[in-house]
Amino acid sequence: MKELFRKAARGDRTERPPVWMMRQAGRYLPEYRELREDYTFLEAISTPEIAAEISLQPFERFQPDGVVMYSDILTVLEPLDFAYHLESGVGPVVENPVDSPDDTYRERGDVREELWYVGELLERLSAELGSDAAVLGFAGGPFTLSAYACEGTPSRSFMAVRRLRAEYPEAFERLLQAFTDVLLEYVTYQVEAGADAIQLFDTYAGLLSPADYREFLLPLHQEILAAIDVPTIIFARNMSGNLELLADSGADVVALDWTVDVETARTELGDVAIQGNLDPALLYGNPETVRERTLEVVEAAGEAGHILNLGHGVDRNTPVENVAAFFEAAKTDA
Amino acid sequence: MKELFRKAARGDRTERPPVWMMRQAGRYLPEYRELREDYTFLEAISTPEIAAEISLQPFERFQPDGVVMYSDILTVLEPLDFAYHLESGVGPVVENPVDSPDDTYRERGDVREELWYVGELLERLSAELGSDAAVLGFAGGPFTLSAYACEGTPSRSFMAVRRLRAEYPEAFERLLQAFTDVLLEYVTYQVEAGADAIQLFDTYAGLLSPADYREFLLPLHQEILAAIDVPTIIFARNMSGNLELLADSGADVVALDWTVDVETARTELGDVAIQGNLDPALLYGNPETVRERTLEVVEAAGEAGHILNLGHGVDRNTPVENVAAFFEAAKTDA
Repeated sequence: MKELFRKAARGDRTERPPVWMMRQAGRYLPEYRELREDYTFLEAISTPEIAAEISLQPFERFQPDGVVMYSDILTVLEPLDFAYHLESGVGPVVENPVDSPDDTYRERGDVREELWYVGELLERLSAELGSDAAVLGFAGGPFTLSAYACEGTPSRSFMAVRRLRAEYPEAFERLLQAFTDVLLEYVTYQVEAGADAIQLFDTYAGLLSPADYREFLLPLHQEILAAIDVPTIIFARNMSGNLELLADSGADVVALDWTVDVETARTELGDVAIQGNLDPALLYGNPETVRERTLEVVEAAGEAGHILNLGHGVDRNTPVENVAAFFEAAKTDA
Repeated sequence: MKELFRKAARGDRTERPPVWMMRQAGRYLPEYRELREDYTFLEAISTPEIAAEISLQPFERFQPDGVVMYSDILTVLEPLDFAYHLESGVGPVVENPVDSPDDTYRERGDVREELWYVGELLERLSAELGSDAAVLGFAGGPFTLSAYACEGTPSRSFMAVRRLRAEYPEAFERLLQAFTDVLLEYVTYQVEAGADAIQLFDTYAGLLSPADYREFLLPLHQEILAAIDVPTIIFARNMSGNLELLADSGADVVALDWTVDVETARTELGDVAIQGNLDPALLYGNPETVRERTLEVVEAAGEAGHILNLGHGVDRNTPVENVAAFFEAAKTDA
């Protein structure tokens, strides 16, 4: 299955698409909710034994072809000395957000030391899974991390970082670069620890105008992705009209959210492999509609260079039987 | 100036683009903040004398070519018996959100009676402005209204309405249609009361997959826009890869958010007029950068069928001198 994943990421034809799900280890699973009763989110992600158990829960149920580490895109706030916690009903809260242009000068801590638990988690997953599934590492992208670091809380507009770009462009670049420097170490560490592929989640990068994205962000994506010796996937939301900015990153695979028409994407992206893109909301249907819509995505994507996934993370209240139908459609009917 | 607006909306060449700003009557103006100290938001929008004064505040400062009525996209919740209020730091909160599929059967109140204050506001603005500026009415679109009605609060994902679509597609269609029926009366009322153009804000429509948008929403947009006897503008966020869905609505003008490359949009939209699309975050720069970036948009849009605007509403803390620079660039340098 690891090999199936590699082939699709290279753009090769596969008998069926390899399949995994963003946020596949999470709230929709009763065994996850039960285990999380005993640990805060930050405790769970920073205790390798627990994080490994959580990462493997969906594998035990559904045998996806990729097992994504149970972690968070915000872990890399730590080496830049941003403190954060998860607030119920709100999401991640950064306790000391950027409060002035000078606050973007950040000392960088030792990434391997501060994020040791991520390396140990990947080692465990790699040992446990062997060739049964690809172990998937990931990292937040520099814009999305900067957005949280400036805003302090989740936001629809993330205006604080966009304001920084307009008001103090040098400070904006400095912050992006600080995160990029951390990320370069972090992704290398993940590969050494056993990640078979890495997805870069610059989820909110689509809030930049295409011109700003090209000027400020694209070179950083290129730098980070070029440093990774295993297959790479890039994901950002709301890029349907600007897919070339994702393709130009140099990622092996462009992850599409559910607002992208797959056939249009194929035309625009040429030979680059794609991942996605079933609307996660459709998993609130019933097993039969899930199966139908999943097979539509598989059909539209074609037989070469497609990793089947949702267009965004699976939602927390999704019925488990619909998740099962998604995996089953991919593995037996596609 | 009213004529300038009409010409651009028709797609004709104009000496300079007509200009207005989404949310141009609002928080960034000190005189607005002062006046609002005495009234809640709902009081202010439902008292025509006050709403007219607020609508005209930016006209007195900047003489935009369009004066948008001071109102809210959610007013049309009322005729379907959804109660809502504005909560500080949160945004609009619907007090009785849709709580079951059957809750989408809604009795429709008398739109003109319940929203009398919108008609009276438009009459006042029309009398006050004569031919000095186009009076702009607007309405929320059926998906965005349904999204608020289901979710109850602002949201990044508006999962409740998307879940309804997957779980109970008939109830989803029923709710969209209920809002559409209200909107058909509402836009007709606005035109009779003096609106020179109407913008349909289906801001969150881009959360639908393109296939679902085409199936469920596009026919409703077409129905609403066809009922309007003055120039029409359609706006939705995150449609950069699906602009044809906006063009197919039949609107005279497609409003572009700031994530759309204007030259690409021109190619895709052909002769349809466009509105937009300066990134509102750039108004946190300084007057010189605002002027430069504004002129870049004007240049990229070309001389025919362009209404200059931001790509989204002006942000609440935007410096007034930068707003002034935006209007000045449009009116004297473009």
